[in-house]
Amino acid sequence: MTIPKKMRAAVLYGPNDIRVTEVDVPVPKSEEVLIKVEACAICGSDPKIIAKGWPWAPPYGEYIPGHEYAGTVVCIGPNISEFKNGDRVVIEPHKGCGRCVNCIRGLYTTCLNYGDKDKGHRHYGFSTNGGYAEYAVNHINTLHHLPDNINFNESTLLTTLGTCLYGIEKIGGIYPGETVTVIGPGPIGLCCLRLAYVLGAGKLILAGTRKSRLDLGRQLGADEIIDINNTEIISEIDRITSKIGSDLVIECSGSAAGASNAVKIVKKSGRVCFLGMYHEDVLIDLNRAVQYNIRMGVARAEGMWCLERAIPLMADGRLCLRSLITHNFPLEDIKNAIDTFVQRKGGAIKVVINP
Amino acid sequence: MTIPKKMRAAVLYGPNDIRVTEVDVPVPKSEEVLIKVEACAICGSDPKIIAKGWPWAPPYGEYIPGHEYAGTVVCIGPNISEFKNGDRVVIEPHKGCGRCVNCIRGLYTTCLNYGDKDKGHRHYGFSTNGGYAEYAVNHINTLHHLPDNINFNESTLLTTLGTCLYGIEKIGGIYPGETVTVIGPGPIGLCCLRLAYVLGAGKLILAGTRKSRLDLGRQLGADEIIDINNTEIISEIDRITSKIGSDLVIECSGSAAGASNAVKIVKKSGRVCFLGMYHEDVLIDLNRAVQYNIRMGVARAEGMWCLERAIPLMADGRLCLRSLITHNFPLEDIKNAIDTFVQRKGGAIKVVINP
Amino acid sequence: MTIPKKMRAAVLYGPNDIRVTEVDVPVPKSEEVLIKVEACAICGSDPKIIAKGWPWAPPYGEYIPGHEYAGTVVCIGPNISEFKNGDRVVIEPHKGCGRCVNCIRGLYTTCLNYGDKDKGHRHYGFSTNGGYAEYAVNHINTLHHLPDNINFNESTLLTTLGTCLYGIEKIGGIYPGETVTVIGPGPIGLCCLRLAYVLGAGKLILAGTRKSRLDLGRQLGADEIIDINNTEIISEIDRITSKIGSDLVIECSGSAAGASNAVKIVKKSGRVCFLGMYHEDVLIDLNRAVQYNIRMGVARAEGMWCLERAIPLMADGRLCLRSLITHNFPLEDIKNAIDTFVQRKGGAIKVVINP
Amino acid sequence: MTIPKKMRAAVLYGPNDIRVTEVDVPVPKSEEVLIKVEACAICGSDPKIIAKGWPWAPPYGEYIPGHEYAGTVVCIGPNISEFKNGDRVVIEPHKGCGRCVNCIRGLYTTCLNYGDKDKGHRHYGFSTNGGYAEYAVNHINTLHHLPDNINFNESTLLTTLGTCLYGIEKIGGIYPGETVTVIGPGPIGLCCLRLAYVLGAGKLILAGTRKSRLDLGRQLGADEIIDINNTEIISEIDRITSKIGSDLVIECSGSAAGASNAVKIVKKSGRVCFLGMYHEDVLIDLNRAVQYNIRMGVARAEGMWCLERAIPLMADGRLCLRSLITHNFPLEDIKNAIDTFVQRKGGAIKVVINP
Repeated sequence: MTIPKKMRAAVLYGPNDIRVTEVDVPVPKSEEVLIKVEACAICGSDPKIIAKGWPWAPPYGEYIPGHEYAGTVVCIGPNISEFKNGDRVVIEPHKGCGRCVNCIRGLYTTCLNYGDKDKGHRHYGFSTNGGYAEYAVNHINTLHHLPDNINFNESTLLTTLGTCLYGIEKIGGIYPGETVTVIGPGPIGLCCLRLAYVLGAGKLILAGTRKSRLDLGRQLGADEIIDINNTEIISEIDRITSKIGSDLVIECSGSAAGASNAVKIVKKSGRVCFLGMYHEDVLIDLNRAVQYNIRMGVARAEGMWCLERAIPLMADGRLCLRSLITHNFPLEDIKNAIDTFVQRKGGAIKVVINP
Repeated sequence: MTIPKKMRAAVLYGPNDIRVTEVDVPVPKSEEVLIKVEACAICGSDPKIIAKGWPWAPPYGEYIPGHEYAGTVVCIGPNISEFKNGDRVVIEPHKGCGRCVNCIRGLYTTCLNYGDKDKGHRHYGFSTNGGYAEYAVNHINTLHHLPDNINFNESTLLTTLGTCLYGIEKIGGIYPGETVTVIGPGPIGLCCLRLAYVLGAGKLILAGTRKSRLDLGRQLGADEIIDINNTEIISEIDRITSKIGSDLVIECSGSAAGASNAVKIVKKSGRVCFLGMYHEDVLIDLNRAVQYNIRMGVARAEGMWCLERAIPLMADGRLCLRSLITHNFPLEDIKNAIDTFVQRKGGAIKVVINP
Repeated sequence: MTIPKKMRAAVLYGPNDIRVTEVDVPVPKSEEVLIKVEACAICGSDPKIIAKGWPWAPPYGEYIPGHEYAGTVVCIGPNISEFKNGDRVVIEPHKGCGRCVNCIRGLYTTCLNYGDKDKGHRHYGFSTNGGYAEYAVNHINTLHHLPDNINFNESTLLTTLGTCLYGIEKIGGIYPGETVTVIGPGPIGLCCLRLAYVLGAGKLILAGTRKSRLDLGRQLGADEIIDINNTEIISEIDRITSKIGSDLVIECSGSAAGASNAVKIVKKSGRVCFLGMYHEDVLIDLNRAVQYNIRMGVARAEGMWCLERAIPLMADGRLCLRSLITHNFPLEDIKNAIDTFVQRKGGAIKVVINP
Repeated sequence: MTIPKKMRAAVLYGPNDIRVTEVDVPVPKSEEVLIKVEACAICGSDPKIIAKGWPWAPPYGEYIPGHEYAGTVVCIGPNISEFKNGDRVVIEPHKGCGRCVNCIRGLYTTCLNYGDKDKGHRHYGFSTNGGYAEYAVNHINTLHHLPDNINFNESTLLTTLGTCLYGIEKIGGIYPGETVTVIGPGPIGLCCLRLAYVLGAGKLILAGTRKSRLDLGRQLGADEIIDINNTEIISEIDRITSKIGSDLVIECSGSAAGASNAVKIVKKSGRVCFLGMYHEDVLIDLNRAVQYNIRMGVARAEGMWCLERAIPLMADGRLCLRSLITHNFPLEDIKNAIDTFVQRKGGAIKVVINP
């Protein structure tokens, strides 16, 4: 396959100044491959870093964001047998340095050398260029083989699913048959909801405000819907669970109210997993947490190779998440794509760029 | 509801001497209820204790076996609000003493006061009378509410499922998307296979000898079948897993060969769960276990209230295990039922008595 | 041994109205024993319930508080072989109902039938009479044998140690050689500090305000002391840990500031255990918790029989905690004792009543 | 510091043909350092690989064994800030490829690319040259900083301790106050025994045959000694534990009898950790394991960076293991050193080479 020298890419030139322009196609080095990007989804963090930058990012004028992408391997660096040209792959954004104590113990999403490229750390789309481009270079540790029956658009959800699965793993897994409440029906919340079902939860409860997303949640397996605009979540959980509370609560709203409520609706000796991005400190009823013996977990991104775990579940059709991909745009329309995503135009949930 | 003074029951009078006769209906005491038994399945352990007795059992002439049963509550002892007359329930056989260190820590299937009735231990159908009778008395700790959409016959599988779930819990759960191999397609093996699917396993492999059961396994979700009569399990696993081995192996055959093979087909840093009843010591390649960093787990019965976890999964139709119930017999035909089960007449898998 | 009909006891007659008076000696029922109380320590929760009552407590005029006590068995109820007259015992306050799902799974400190005496729940000194009396009745599940080389005064710390150990168990244990920071050098904090050492922590850091307690912490094994009055905890932890943070933080101050700081000083992928009683909601930097991949645990009291685990460690002299017992008072002086404890007169840490 | 071109090293020329000769000093590459070896202990596996070779080893005539060593950094490769010349370090032998699924998840001692140097795997002293030489090159992932108060001889025990700690971690840790039985008082067994004490075990039992080692075990904290030559282990454990069994058994004898007994002396719902090298298949009473609900763990070497955890425990004097180092030899006497170790001359336990 002939690889051009130049490619189109969305480059960030300054706060909210993203432009599609021509840049050099990157060259893979040792343990790296070049990917022809087929699909790159917009994550909730993208508009924020496009607006404000990222402290460890390449300089403005060189920085290509985008970290939920998939494509085809078109060139491999030296000494790689794991991948070959033509392989379909999906990437995960984090590659740890491999030499700090966290990385050595497998905790590479919390690498102690974050942003230190010389020591081998990569965070594609953040501290290193990403997928809003025709081509991208990735370290092989960030690549996962994509079976033929997963299409590229759908596969961009795998990064999200990896984060959800890491959160679930860190809170101890889904216990068979338990009652799981998800707060916040955004992409992470809906993915958690569906994963909870696929991993054996019993009763599924979804709480949120946006009717279209709550309806989608019902299709994905929610047994009970709590519309927070119209009902009060604590009393609703009391009603549904006969005042016992939810065995597991997965907080995905990223709101202070959601996080605060999560601790209030969980059962004695139950568990809460926080997966939102919280833009302010959160008031927690810590006394209830202690007196109720609550375990609280979180997840920093798609750690512990959890993305890989989601692939067979998507491949055999169990996850049924394609309806989350609501919009596609070509690379040249990236501003429009971002607008659609941020303003949730046309009921947008996940918006995918196809470079 | 009028409760008679006398009932029909299958009483063990001596080794292999089980007779259906008339006995007193038992009377529930504190924290106990009386159940009208609707279905009691034959477990693989039943023919053995009928043949050989059980050291802690009631005396011959008084001992009623049977420990996988369900029915309707018809009389409740004092001070019980958890159940009421008319409730449909399924039982679990173990009730710990509640006062030894294991019971206090929740490990009641390994109660240190096993068989000590004065201290509150019960093992229904073993050390205490069980379910091959029109009525049975059970402590409320051994009762689980049965939703209307689970019929009594199917519900007798819940004890088996509880054991499987406890084994899965003790080995750390099913990891999402992992490859799980089940050795031995008996009731426990087939339940484990289906649970592995329902709890999120990726590739499912079933190994055994009996074609009809392997075929059933395929219907329950097995992606790969290894017929041990015709192929060699180690090389087959090598082929299927590209020489990496199975992430998790659940050994349910109860054979020395099965247990030995389980350690040989598991991946580096993988896990093996032994759930069989082994009638001889087993030769294990312990060096492989050490060098391959293998975690090995087991489960003593339906511990940690795991039976309860299976109920929502059966109630919403995910488990699809009704086809395991192959035969029903009235109580008077219990000898015939046992013969059918032991000799696997007519492809018998689970045989249920309906008193 | 002759047991009198009447005894002296500290009875709560109303808010802050505790009086030592004569009452009937209680009589042990099934699975219960009568204890001659030798020592009962004042817990931080005691002054609060004496001031405000406890919703599930016996009525004013009948309620005897006190839940950290030890003594000698003087009368046993029917059918008990675990204890005999003359046995030295220490008690734990929680006895679950034994029949709810939490109790059956061993989580008896979060019994779903809290306060329901008819169902068997007991919380000695809270919902049931306790140890500020010459005699007390306890269920055998709340008794632990006390070796001769632990004296009664010291043994009252075992309840505290049980809570600390449960917190440590629920956060995953002390990892060998790790850096542990304890915030709050009260009895729970100092016990956690010493336990961390005895269970294999590496560097130990203690943060607090009261010099005498910080000094005691140094004697108990603290390598570094942070006097929060004079230094800033975050920068101090940065200095001590070379900006990496503490592997484990155990928050025992019960203050909002302490809880908030705990999340700020922990290492990436580290752990925080909250063991305080928080009298207001706490502002948590939940975003740091998520981005830093922090596991957060708590403990409701001395669960999972953890008190028992502390006994051998105290018996062989490893714990060295006797210096925490700073004052002793006879029962008649209980008001004085409480004053001493609350106002920390004479550097009071733990104050013990000897009835 | 001037580094010579040539050095003395013990090179394996064929089965049992090890000769001290002159070879080139190796040169560190990227992420590697050169170490002046100060001490290299003989491990039980060394005589075996010297006698039989190792399938993945360098060719005879070039292969330098030795994998328990420590020394001083004398030259660092490019781009390393973690170490500098003059640093005292101890090494661990395993460095995973860093790119297989096991390595990415932190399970590098079970790297799926074992022996593949091109992919970055190293096993110093096995598949790569080791420490029976004046100098050795190591990847920085295999280095641990050595505090001044640990001498080089003692530090060679850290690899052993890393393996013990990994075994303990994989079996779930030492539970505070529990009864731990160690079978086999070799270096691994004695290290496990001492670690169990330092990590908070209650009663410690040591079983073995060699009086001098059993005596040493008593000095290291064993409360009970079982001399298998003179007593029967099962009845002794019954006696010591009042027929309850040992909470945790750590099998370090590497014998089939030891492994078989380990499963027979463990408590209901207890745990067994196998840490021996087993040269034959082992007959296990798997039925007891299942009926007794036994968790079984192992450890492949010093995984999960566990060696690092042992350093603070050795540095502050808690481990007290210096007496395990019984002999020192210069490099030129390596054959004598090996003989002393193998034949246990002069009560040899650990024999250290000082090149």
